[in-house]
Amino acid sequence: MSDGDLMEGVAAESASLAGHLGLGKLIYLYDDNRVTLSAATDITFTEDRAARFAAYGWHIETVADGNDLAAIAQALTAAREETRRPSLILVRTHLGYGSPHKQDSFEAHGSPLGVDEVRLTKDHLGWPTEPPFDIPDAARAHFREAMTRGAQAEAEWNARFATYAGKFPDLARELRQILSGEPAAGWDADLPRFAADAKGMATRVASGKVMNAIAPRLPALVGGSADLDPSTHTVLKELGAFEPPGLERADTQGSEGGGWTYAGRNLHFGVREHAMGAILNGIAAHGGAIPYGATFMVFSDYMRPPMRLAALMGLHVIYVFTHDSVALGEDGATHQPVEQLAGLRSVPRLVVLRPADANETVCAWRVAVATRDRPVALVLTRQDVPTLDRARFAAAEGLARGAYVLLDPPGGDPEMILIASGSEVGLIVAAGERLTAQGHRIRLVSFPSWELFDAQPREYRDAVLPPALHTRLAVEAGVSQGWHRYVGERGDVLALDRFGASAPGGVVMRELGFTVENVCARALALRGVSPEVAGG
Amino acid sequence: MSDGDLMEGVAAESASLAGHLGLGKLIYLYDDNRVTLSAATDITFTEDRAARFAAYGWHIETVADGNDLAAIAQALTAAREETRRPSLILVRTHLGYGSPHKQDSFEAHGSPLGVDEVRLTKDHLGWPTEPPFDIPDAARAHFREAMTRGAQAEAEWNARFATYAGKFPDLARELRQILSGEPAAGWDADLPRFAADAKGMATRVASGKVMNAIAPRLPALVGGSADLDPSTHTVLKELGAFEPPGLERADTQGSEGGGWTYAGRNLHFGVREHAMGAILNGIAAHGGAIPYGATFMVFSDYMRPPMRLAALMGLHVIYVFTHDSVALGEDGATHQPVEQLAGLRSVPRLVVLRPADANETVCAWRVAVATRDRPVALVLTRQDVPTLDRARFAAAEGLARGAYVLLDPPGGDPEMILIASGSEVGLIVAAGERLTAQGHRIRLVSFPSWELFDAQPREYRDAVLPPALHTRLAVEAGVSQGWHRYVGERGDVLALDRFGASAPGGVVMRELGFTVENVCARALALRGVSPEVAGG
Repeated sequence: MSDGDLMEGVAAESASLAGHLGLGKLIYLYDDNRVTLSAATDITFTEDRAARFAAYGWHIETVADGNDLAAIAQALTAAREETRRPSLILVRTHLGYGSPHKQDSFEAHGSPLGVDEVRLTKDHLGWPTEPPFDIPDAARAHFREAMTRGAQAEAEWNARFATYAGKFPDLARELRQILSGEPAAGWDADLPRFAADAKGMATRVASGKVMNAIAPRLPALVGGSADLDPSTHTVLKELGAFEPPGLERADTQGSEGGGWTYAGRNLHFGVREHAMGAILNGIAAHGGAIPYGATFMVFSDYMRPPMRLAALMGLHVIYVFTHDSVALGEDGATHQPVEQLAGLRSVPRLVVLRPADANETVCAWRVAVATRDRPVALVLTRQDVPTLDRARFAAAEGLARGAYVLLDPPGGDPEMILIASGSEVGLIVAAGERLTAQGHRIRLVSFPSWELFDAQPREYRDAVLPPALHTRLAVEAGVSQGWHRYVGERGDVLALDRFGASAPGGVVMRELGFTVENVCARALALRGVSPEVAGG
Repeated sequence: MSDGDLMEGVAAESASLAGHLGLGKLIYLYDDNRVTLSAATDITFTEDRAARFAAYGWHIETVADGNDLAAIAQALTAAREETRRPSLILVRTHLGYGSPHKQDSFEAHGSPLGVDEVRLTKDHLGWPTEPPFDIPDAARAHFREAMTRGAQAEAEWNARFATYAGKFPDLARELRQILSGEPAAGWDADLPRFAADAKGMATRVASGKVMNAIAPRLPALVGGSADLDPSTHTVLKELGAFEPPGLERADTQGSEGGGWTYAGRNLHFGVREHAMGAILNGIAAHGGAIPYGATFMVFSDYMRPPMRLAALMGLHVIYVFTHDSVALGEDGATHQPVEQLAGLRSVPRLVVLRPADANETVCAWRVAVATRDRPVALVLTRQDVPTLDRARFAAAEGLARGAYVLLDPPGGDPEMILIASGSEVGLIVAAGERLTAQGHRIRLVSFPSWELFDAQPREYRDAVLPPALHTRLAVEAGVSQGWHRYVGERGDVLALDRFGASAPGGVVMRELGFTVENVCARALALRGVSPEVAGG
């Protein structure tokens, strides 16, 4: 850990939680050099770091001289022996140690010392200046011992595991299965199906039902929310809270049944979205678990840095973002996501899924569990959306291809395409009915994921959005950014390039233009537009 | 402050900095009710809050009973009397106080008590149950006293200010000017002009020169970076560091000259981007300053929530984001922004400016200072870019319109348009020269800001991007998202829909396709494409 690591908020959130959880295996070696990139810490960072971490419930060790290897070893031993609290070891060091002109200077942080100062430093430390990269034989031999030790440790582990597998073949198979990262065959046997229902249900509610249906056959699934379980519907019921065992806590309200132990599969992150994102990455990188984290869609902004790292590292992390549009209503513009969907889609490799109804939500979870080489974000509604009658509309499994034809006019040959994602699919379905009644030939496309659609072969994409059919209207309660690529220059986008407002969700949607009337009007207007390139 | 406020990382960053700076006017009243939305704090948040804030250097007061008004008043008095440290007052309260079934329960956090429980609560508190909204006359009279007190205070202030203005008319005029939020006439008199130069300079360097040129005539300009001054070039030289006066600090390296006082115009945020964004909002909302904050472009992800609030609230905040593409080189994919430009552009009302050279950077600062009703983000290069010869190319002032024709073929009538922002403008200029030498008729468009261009009248937009001219290539070292709107379905985008890589900047750009050869090839390929709508 560096000074910067201790200053960043994500580290403060994580350290508070680690102290609460009593994570005794965690040890921070803090490189306490009192210099950052631009200055000494005296200009920005003069808090009592040891006292802060003690307040978090950490065990503290101090090493006065970072070159005193015996003192460091002693502190590490003490930290290892402390099994019920994480440990912070403050090690006083000197940046650019031994450099006559740059030691303890911020100029040694981001810039090389330079040829001359390197020579002076070697002189000062009594080190030969030639050859420039010199590794003494004793050092080489010392480091190479690690190879022997590592090979021995691996052989010992393999022998112990073979013995274990001989005695407990089923448990060994399960452990191998979980560590492989691949869900066991049949993990999806209990995925629900939802009956058609005009009133329907919120996709967050459908998601909660899916999670609890699959959790028993998918022991790797662990996770939780940033203090929003009752709203995100992400509790795994009766599967316990991940909390330090054996502690007496005065008030256990809010726990979900199943007890408080380190075997609990529900993680309680507190109001700490950024730490949540980072912790999910750590779990996924370790292996043996498929971690998920939940919060309101607008708060995804708090955890963009770890989401980016998950995408960059190809980690299998699942995000559950609920309350996904201005339709959440009264909480108002601060809580209403508008640009977050575009922001998530902009991250390379991150798969964003915005299912239209309960059955698309089932399929979205199937994709989220099966997509092992990258993170997946599920974008879900607060409000009820109709559960579509799949006898009339195409099967929800089309979600896996990113976009699919939900309905075509009888005999085909549509004159225009209405496109939507998530809760706006219900809107284009209603608009489609009205336009059909007026004698128009309408294709409806459900478009839950740009990334999955872009990965389809050209033939499939052209079948869903035929190149010759220019009359296309996309409807989404978020910023329009990026939709023009799919509707083309002769199409239109009914979107929301402004912030929301505080009123009941239905009122907000109506006032901002998300009505059947407006969808129909915008669609019909397209039929009269001359085909020219817009200036912007 | 709530439990959630104390858990969030941004509050931890801010509190550490407030303690360091000795902000004695700052008082937190902490509503210590031990219940969050989903549970008791026992499940997530058991740190010693008072000890943590003491470690930050805060003064601590505790009130055992939140209904004890005298104790609260006493604690507030003590907090006000402490002028050299911020104060935390922990006030023990009970959520849903007086409710027989919901007091101290998380169910009282986000949901209404309901009609029955409200009646029971009123009964329990000895309050009349009818009428449902009852304000006793004594309470009304007490609150209305605030109107009289406020009117008196305003009258007293106005009288004092009138006396002051009589004695010191120049100072009074300056104060009024600064508080109006409008820069004084002539603030831009010393804006530099940069001579044409093929080697050129990084736009971050040009920005630093602009800032130091305008600072003397623009006393409202205050700000700093999240520990990156030497890299972002955002120091106001010799204008002092905002630091508590009278303190002996052992190590003042990194300060910029001008002393350490509360009059210092350079703010040192430490490695705390999120707090920086939030603090800028506070300064802007207070008025009397035009605050700026700087960091590397990729770290803008850490401060999206406060940037969103600045846009929502219409605050005049200036962000300086440097190291704006994969061309930053060796720091690699973790530090190379790719999706950040699209992410910033997705925020409603936020103006994003990516100037192409030193003189566009001058104009970008002019727009940033003059745009008073919303935040502005300047997106700047680490690497040198050519300073264009404005005798040959159109004037850099075109930046203010978002996009402008940099160069047209002799006699006009271009056959294709090459479009770019920032450092890629130099690339299309070079490609344009090559294509022109091959006999093609090329229009070059510099496109530093989508928001400013979209706000132009249709005639201007059509003049820059003529609707009939379909052969358009946009070039930008970031994700392509959103560019299709400007190039149309018969155009193309040379962008970067993947993460970067670690190598010298020139090598990264070349390997990822940002070469004159590739720009020319992609542009020429467009000339043979048949006009049909792409499936995606």
